[in-house]
Amino acid sequence: MLQTIKYDGGKLYIIDQTKLPVVNETIEIKNAEECFDAIKRLKIRGAPAIGIAAAYGIFLGVKDVEEDDFDKFYKKFTKIKEYLSSSRPTAVNLFWALNRMDKKVLSLKDRPLHEIKEALEEEAVLIQKEDEDVCRKIGENGLKILKDNMSVLTHCNAGVLAASKYGTALAPIYMAKEKGLNIKVFADETRPLLQGARLTSFELSQAGIDVTLITDSMAAVVMKKGWVDMVITGCDRVAANGDAANKIGTYGVALLAKAHNIPFYIAAPFSTIDLNTSTGDDIVIEERDKEEIIRGFGVQTAPLNIKVFNPAFDVTPHELINGIITEKGIVRAPYDINLKKYFGL
Amino acid sequence: MLQTIKYDGGKLYIIDQTKLPVVNETIEIKNAEECFDAIKRLKIRGAPAIGIAAAYGIFLGVKDVEEDDFDKFYKKFTKIKEYLSSSRPTAVNLFWALNRMDKKVLSLKDRPLHEIKEALEEEAVLIQKEDEDVCRKIGENGLKILKDNMSVLTHCNAGVLAASKYGTALAPIYMAKEKGLNIKVFADETRPLLQGARLTSFELSQAGIDVTLITDSMAAVVMKKGWVDMVITGCDRVAANGDAANKIGTYGVALLAKAHNIPFYIAAPFSTIDLNTSTGDDIVIEERDKEEIIRGFGVQTAPLNIKVFNPAFDVTPHELINGIITEKGIVRAPYDINLKKYFGL
Repeated sequence: MLQTIKYDGGKLYIIDQTKLPVVNETIEIKNAEECFDAIKRLKIRGAPAIGIAAAYGIFLGVKDVEEDDFDKFYKKFTKIKEYLSSSRPTAVNLFWALNRMDKKVLSLKDRPLHEIKEALEEEAVLIQKEDEDVCRKIGENGLKILKDNMSVLTHCNAGVLAASKYGTALAPIYMAKEKGLNIKVFADETRPLLQGARLTSFELSQAGIDVTLITDSMAAVVMKKGWVDMVITGCDRVAANGDAANKIGTYGVALLAKAHNIPFYIAAPFSTIDLNTSTGDDIVIEERDKEEIIRGFGVQTAPLNIKVFNPAFDVTPHELINGIITEKGIVRAPYDINLKKYFGL
Repeated sequence: MLQTIKYDGGKLYIIDQTKLPVVNETIEIKNAEECFDAIKRLKIRGAPAIGIAAAYGIFLGVKDVEEDDFDKFYKKFTKIKEYLSSSRPTAVNLFWALNRMDKKVLSLKDRPLHEIKEALEEEAVLIQKEDEDVCRKIGENGLKILKDNMSVLTHCNAGVLAASKYGTALAPIYMAKEKGLNIKVFADETRPLLQGARLTSFELSQAGIDVTLITDSMAAVVMKKGWVDMVITGCDRVAANGDAANKIGTYGVALLAKAHNIPFYIAAPFSTIDLNTSTGDDIVIEERDKEEIIRGFGVQTAPLNIKVFNPAFDVTPHELINGIITEKGIVRAPYDINLKKYFGL
């Protein structure tokens, strides 16, 4: 399995994902500036991975700051925090991780500086560790519904390249591999940005997992042939009623799965479940630039002046979802009741 | 509307489709060699268009041949026929058109050479004219199910760029435009070869038709939003029971249409209906090179050694087809009975 983010002996390394799948290159991130650059240029991407990188980034930014006064130190800390926050302003996990580091600093304001720095380093390591634990548990829970020789179709990339280890949608598959099960995967290429082709097929084949790449338009025929036993995708946000927003194309895959009586699961950490969003209708869908479709990867393949509809996500209604694989277990319908139960509400 | 093939004053012109959508260039085809090259290099493509081009090509090849003996002339004719046949050996219409020209020559073996040549020219013009008539009638029949302000989703390219005029799936839309109806079109880009992006969105926008380009993975959400009133696609072969083989992705679109209660039609000339093929299961599906998916248009977007499944077509079962729009009328279920009726069987 690839190691997307590695912190070792005080040094931070990441896989430069802008070079995948052509070159698999690990680069060192030496300071906050390099961390900012890596997030901004998508060298690292995927919500959990961005949060982890930012946590390490802010530690790298302050580790050589020498101030005997806490307020002066905290001023510099805050400046770096704001700087890193601006690297990818729509990434919720980025703010979450930086705020957690902020709280840690404030909780230690009366302690000596070297102790604060040590605590920040530990906190970043802990954030990564916790993400790894969440992903592992998602994998273990997902493993309960997998059997030897099953075949899973997935869409987009919710794998190790988006997180610290295992990923979410791909976690059950990695876990199955660790247990010696033979699971076959079909990866939708996932237009327009081809995360399935560039990332999912790459990371699975690197891990020695049997993966077959298809275009999004081939999912239906692969299902009809009886080659798919289950669909598992990641998820960007789950509403209180179980509706799930994920990469554009997921809703279509869910409909195709239903038409072929194939169970459709999403994998998501509890941090993705938003009880304040009642239904999928309340999720605002980002529309992206038409260039992604008419000039993907630098080659013009459509008239430049053509009208394009390019939503980044779609919403899969809860009726199409057989279960939500989380770190606490597989949540099943009725989601409006069962999601609350898991939150102790 | 574009003019894919134009024969005017003894000169043959085609749009060089290899340059679309970046450049819209019409080139002259002066002889059989240039015709061979145009077909082989896909400067002209689409079953009807290839047949028409080959018919003109063989005429251009023999028009300057001077022989007073028929057998000598026919030998040269046959040589050019075989040469043109080898330009794209899987294109059925190519052989069909060349054989028709062959029959014409043989039927006139006792006539003077100038008369034979004139008849060959007329036959090529007639082949084009007949195709235009078929497409127009498909358009007129399709128009019966269109209403003003409707929105149609289509997949791949079955438009004027694949035929002499109007095309098949797009014929009703062009006809609606001629009648002053306002029809909006969503064009699936159609991976892997992007005929929807490169050709359909180009030819419709050239004709002043309101077209929006989407990736194949966006069809479901566009339907869910209520933006699609009907799906019309072309078709490569219809079996006796109404099962229809068409560009990969069509079957998925048909399932998505059904899930949203949107009528799904295919448009096809009767020459596409093959009563000798009982069902879709009997249609052999070509698998194409993985390069089309991992290195589309010259850019590597997947690991080179990845396993790929790349079927060129899929089969839409007749249960999902609301009607087959032909030049003789719209054929509806039960197809096994009604298709035979149209053939007078």
